[in-house]
Amino acid sequence: MVSKRKMFEKPIGMRDTLPDLYRRKREARTRISNVIESFGYDFLETPTLEFYDTVGKASAILDQQLFKLMDRDGNTLVLRPDMTAPIARLATSSLYTGGYPLRLSYDTNVFRAQQREGGRPAEFEQVGVELIGDGTASADAEVITLMITSLKAAGLTNFTIALGHIGYVNALFREILGNEERTKQIRRFLYEKNYVGYRQHVKSLPLSTIDKNRLLTLLRLRGEGDVLRTAIELVQDEKAIQSIQELKQLWSALEANSVTEFVKIDFNLIPHMSYYTGILFEGYSPLVGYPICGGGRYNQLLEKFDRPADATGFAIRLDYLLEALDDTNSLKMECVLFSSERRKEAIRFAEELRKKDKQVVLQDIAGVKDVDAFTEKFIETTFFIGKPGREVNL
Amino acid sequence: MVSKRKMFEKPIGMRDTLPDLYRRKREARTRISNVIESFGYDFLETPTLEFYDTVGKASAILDQQLFKLMDRDGNTLVLRPDMTAPIARLATSSLYTGGYPLRLSYDTNVFRAQQREGGRPAEFEQVGVELIGDGTASADAEVITLMITSLKAAGLTNFTIALGHIGYVNALFREILGNEERTKQIRRFLYEKNYVGYRQHVKSLPLSTIDKNRLLTLLRLRGEGDVLRTAIELVQDEKAIQSIQELKQLWSALEANSVTEFVKIDFNLIPHMSYYTGILFEGYSPLVGYPICGGGRYNQLLEKFDRPADATGFAIRLDYLLEALDDTNSLKMECVLFSSERRKEAIRFAEELRKKDKQVVLQDIAGVKDVDAFTEKFIETTFFIGKPGREVNL
Repeated sequence: MVSKRKMFEKPIGMRDTLPDLYRRKREARTRISNVIESFGYDFLETPTLEFYDTVGKASAILDQQLFKLMDRDGNTLVLRPDMTAPIARLATSSLYTGGYPLRLSYDTNVFRAQQREGGRPAEFEQVGVELIGDGTASADAEVITLMITSLKAAGLTNFTIALGHIGYVNALFREILGNEERTKQIRRFLYEKNYVGYRQHVKSLPLSTIDKNRLLTLLRLRGEGDVLRTAIELVQDEKAIQSIQELKQLWSALEANSVTEFVKIDFNLIPHMSYYTGILFEGYSPLVGYPICGGGRYNQLLEKFDRPADATGFAIRLDYLLEALDDTNSLKMECVLFSSERRKEAIRFAEELRKKDKQVVLQDIAGVKDVDAFTEKFIETTFFIGKPGREVNL
Repeated sequence: MVSKRKMFEKPIGMRDTLPDLYRRKREARTRISNVIESFGYDFLETPTLEFYDTVGKASAILDQQLFKLMDRDGNTLVLRPDMTAPIARLATSSLYTGGYPLRLSYDTNVFRAQQREGGRPAEFEQVGVELIGDGTASADAEVITLMITSLKAAGLTNFTIALGHIGYVNALFREILGNEERTKQIRRFLYEKNYVGYRQHVKSLPLSTIDKNRLLTLLRLRGEGDVLRTAIELVQDEKAIQSIQELKQLWSALEANSVTEFVKIDFNLIPHMSYYTGILFEGYSPLVGYPICGGGRYNQLLEKFDRPADATGFAIRLDYLLEALDDTNSLKMECVLFSSERRKEAIRFAEELRKKDKQVVLQDIAGVKDVDAFTEKFIETTFFIGKPGREVNL
C-alpha cells in the first residue's frame, strides 16, 4: 500500500495532462513541428539528465531553480532546465561540421524547480529552434518569422511580438549611469515591467535634467519601425548605434517576410535569460499573463564549449500557448458493445468504422459493471448482444 | 566555461537522439499512436517527477534502479520508472468514474538507473496502453491484438509474441516443490532463460522421477494452442487449471481477431515486473537481443491506491523496435541561397517549394563561411546571388 497521507499527490509544480488537454497540445505541437520542418530544421532529442558541470553551468537558469541529484560516482546531475545549452553541447561536438549554419529544433519538457504550491509549473513543454553559426540579420529575421508562422499554424490570431536589443539598453544605461551596479538596479525595474517604479527611481538619481529625460524617453521607445529614429537620437555610444543598425536591417528583412504586422519594437524589453547578447523578442497574447514564446541572439554561449559561433533561436511554451487558443477540439469516440457469441460480427463492424478513421472502443459486455455509466462518453454505441440480428444503436 | 574534463560527456546510460534516428522514431511513434487512438484509447501525460512514497513504491522497478532526489521539504522524489503506476494513480483519482473500463495510453520516457558505462539505456521511450477495470479474456485479447497491430503499423513484419501465464507456472512449482523458497530458486533459471541450468537443477532435486519429468516437460510447453492440452495433463491444482481455461478463452478471442499467426504459447515466460498476476506476454524480433515489447494482467496494483480493479496493458520500447526496423527514411531537404539584394525573389521561391510540402532551408549567403561544406547535405541548392536572372541549380 502506498503512503495514505499523499496517495494521489504530486510534487510541487508537477502536473498531469489529462486526455482533453493532451489532444489539444498534440494538435498544436504537430502543426508547429510541421512548419519548423518545412523551414529545413532538424529535430533532435537530448537526455533529461545532464552533468551540472557542463550543461547545468552553461544554462542561464538560476542555480536555485535547478533540480539536482547525485550519481553513484558523486557527480552532480541536473534535470535539463532548457534546451539551448544541450543543443550547444551537440552543435560543438557530434553535430559539429564545417557546414555551419546548423538549423536544429526540439520539442521537449524542461524543468525549473518552484518554491511553493500554486506557483508556476516546474515541468513544461517547449517547442523551439536554434540557428547556429549565422550572425546576419537574415538569421534573426528567419527565427522571428518562423516563430510567427508557427503561432499562426497553431491557430493563434491575436498576438504581438515585442522586439528589443539588450545591447542598446545596456549602452544607454552605461553612457548615462556610468557603473554596472547602477545599471543593474535600473534594469530590474524594466525586467519587472514596473514603469512607475522606474520613473520614481529616475527622478531620485543625481543626474542632469537632460539625462533624466533621456532615461524617461526610453519608456516611450515602443512601436513601429519609426521608433528607431528616436532611439538613435538618444545615444552617442558606438555599440548603441550599431544596435540600431542591426534592428534596421532586421526590420527590413521582416518586411520582406511580410510579418511586421505582428511585431512591435520595444526597447524596454529585458531578457530573463542572461545569455542574450543582442536582438531579443517575446510573444504575447492578450489572454495570457506571461510571454507565450521568446528568444534572441546568444553569440557567447558556444564558446563555453570551446567552439565560438554566433547563434539565435526561439522557444514556444506549449502550456501558455494553449491558454491563448480556443478549445474547439472535442472528443468524438464510438463504442461497440458485444457479448461473446457475437464477437466476430462486432469485430467486423468495429474494423469498418476504424477504416473510416473513426476512434472505436470494442468492449465485451462481460467486462462492464455499469453499462450506462460506461457508454455515457461516446457519441454513439452499437450493441451486438444476444441473438444475431438485434443490434441497436443508442 | 564548462568543465574541460567532460565538456561533451553525458551521465551513465544517457543518450542523444540525433536527427536521422529522431525522424525514424517519430515516424514509428506516429503510426503506433494512430492505431492506439483508433481503438478508442485516450492519451495522457503524467509528471516526470513523482513521490517515492506513492508511485515509486507502487512501481515494480527495483529500488536500486530508481533515480532519487529530495525536494525542499525533505520528501524523496523519483524520476518515473514506468507508466503503469502513474496511470494507476490517475485511474483511481482524477479519472475515476463509475464508467470502468477505462482505456488509457501514453508515449513517454521512463528512467531506470544503470550501474556502468556501456550498459543498457537509463532513459528510454515507451508507447503503451492500460485497460483498467475489465477482467475478461476479451480485454487481454484486445491489448495483445492492439500491440500486434501497432507493431505491424510501424512496419515490423517478422516478430513473435510469447504468451504465458504466471499463475500456471507458480501453481505447478508450488504443487511439486512445496515451498516458496524452492519455487523462487527454480523460477530464476526460467527468468534468465538458462534452460541447461534448469535441467541440471531439476535433476539435483530430491523428487520422484515422475515429478522430475513433470518439471522437465514444462520446458516443452511452447508452441501453438495445442500446447494447452499437454499443460492441463501436468497439473491437479485448481488455480493451474483455471489458468489454462483463461488461456483457452484468450486463444479463441485471438483467433477471432485473426492474430494467432504471431503468437506462440510459452509457459516458460517469467515476467521481469513483479506486479503481473496472470496472463503475460513479450514480443521478439530475430534482429534484437531484448524483448521489444511486453505486458500482461495486473489485478492487484490498483488496490494499492485503495480502489481495486482488474487491469491489463502493454508497452513497446521504441529504441528496440527501431533496431528491428529497416532504415529507409532518408532525408530530402532543399536549399535556397540568396544575397540580400535578391531576398524577395528567394523568399517567393522557397515559399512555393514549401507549399509543395518540401523542406526548404532559406539561407543568406552572408551567413555562410564555407558554401561547399554547407550545401553538401541538400539534395538540391538554388542560388539567388548577384544580379537578377542568374539563378543556378546545383
